[in-house]
Amino acid sequence: VKKVLTQVQSEFQTIEVYETPSLGRLFALDSIVQTIDQFEFIYHEMLAHPAMYAHPNPETVLIIGGGDGGTLREALRHASVQKAVLCEIDCRVIEVAREWLPKMACSFFDPRAEIHVADGVAFLQKTDRLFDVIIIDSTDPTAGEGGNLFTEAFYNLCRDRLTAQGVLSAQTENPIYDHAWMKRAFFHIQSAFPNARIYTSPCPQYPSGYWCYTIASKGPDPLHRIPTERKTESLSLQYYTPEIHTASFALPPFLSHLLDHPL
Amino acid sequence: VKKVLTQVQSEFQTIEVYETPSLGRLFALDSIVQTIDQFEFIYHEMLAHPAMYAHPNPETVLIIGGGDGGTLREALRHASVQKAVLCEIDCRVIEVAREWLPKMACSFFDPRAEIHVADGVAFLQKTDRLFDVIIIDSTDPTAGEGGNLFTEAFYNLCRDRLTAQGVLSAQTENPIYDHAWMKRAFFHIQSAFPNARIYTSPCPQYPSGYWCYTIASKGPDPLHRIPTERKTESLSLQYYTPEIHTASFALPPFLSHLLDHPL
Repeated sequence: VKKVLTQVQSEFQTIEVYETPSLGRLFALDSIVQTIDQFEFIYHEMLAHPAMYAHPNPETVLIIGGGDGGTLREALRHASVQKAVLCEIDCRVIEVAREWLPKMACSFFDPRAEIHVADGVAFLQKTDRLFDVIIIDSTDPTAGEGGNLFTEAFYNLCRDRLTAQGVLSAQTENPIYDHAWMKRAFFHIQSAFPNARIYTSPCPQYPSGYWCYTIASKGPDPLHRIPTERKTESLSLQYYTPEIHTASFALPPFLSHLLDHPL
Repeated sequence: VKKVLTQVQSEFQTIEVYETPSLGRLFALDSIVQTIDQFEFIYHEMLAHPAMYAHPNPETVLIIGGGDGGTLREALRHASVQKAVLCEIDCRVIEVAREWLPKMACSFFDPRAEIHVADGVAFLQKTDRLFDVIIIDSTDPTAGEGGNLFTEAFYNLCRDRLTAQGVLSAQTENPIYDHAWMKRAFFHIQSAFPNARIYTSPCPQYPSGYWCYTIASKGPDPLHRIPTERKTESLSLQYYTPEIHTASFALPPFLSHLLDHPL
């Protein structure tokens, strides 16, 4: 890193933004890298678009976590979206993103964005609203508040706040160093939904550079909900395409074998 | 790392093997990680098998570099192979692998393996043998002797030593930090062959964790040479499958765009 741009101690964590020599800004929580300007697009596109396209017409979206704004930016690319609610536990993360991470925080100023500062579990317990898509953009389960978002109770809450064809996606760690967490999240999500799948992408900013996401649906299997070329082209994406959608669901044997035995 | 197992200064480089707390042995050249026991299989399977399956019946294989033995091990899994020649410039790498990296160096003792200690370019210039598959398992072009293997002259030499349906594969760096090298290798290979493609895989042990390979063929397009499920199952692979073959050729727009303009 070249320079510390800001360092904030919030109620929950230490929030830092650094300038790097050639990769843009680096955003960290409790010294764990969350995003790097140069390649955050891979993670945010891959967390949002498979779920957004798996739903036939996503009008309402809920993002749990994601206080940097990157996932919100991706969800709002879809013209069908009328309301995207972001529920972040730490208001200081949103403040820091607004001031120091303009590439991602641009999404906060969209009139369709609605920001809540609240615990995701508490928000879901209280609200009676329903959403077409829920995206879980949490920190690691081993750090801060992230662990509360890796429980069966939480995924059941999500399912109950989804519409009839509702789709959920979640970041579910890496299959190299944290496969116990990946497995736990996947099996809990699978118990809560009629169908669930793991898919992967590279993620240069995270441990191992190889990331897993879980997608689940109350409607058709998300694997087969491949968008048309025309639909994705209009969104000007840098990573996600219809071909990448299918490719990301191809799991290598070592990863499938991790899922051979339930918890 | 837990312990230094060996440290050798050869004519070309510093060779080191470390014991890690939970990932097995780590092998480094000039302080750059080459392999880690726990996940070397991804790189070696993905460098070898797309090319091995792209050829209808690979009997003779040449590996340039790859002194740790991992690529040789993968090539020799194919029952059709009668001779696999490995040409490594540094005999000390082979010695170290034999003593300290048994998981990879097992392949050196296969009666079909033939080991040459020589510069890859010089070997190709001198030999009049032809090979069905040539695999380039080089170090980074910016370090040691690796750069000589990223030139058009070298790829032309490879093409001329391939049989009529011959296939070449090469590690061609990562698309995040070293895309200039990726691009250079790809365009040089493309000039030398009727068809060439980039494909990718995760690679937890290398910078960015996201790796590019280039495959080229004098026969049909390797993208469409998808093996049957039965064929790959008999090899007991941990990463490569027919589905992964196809998936690995799906390039995201940011990577395709890097190839929009020739050198």
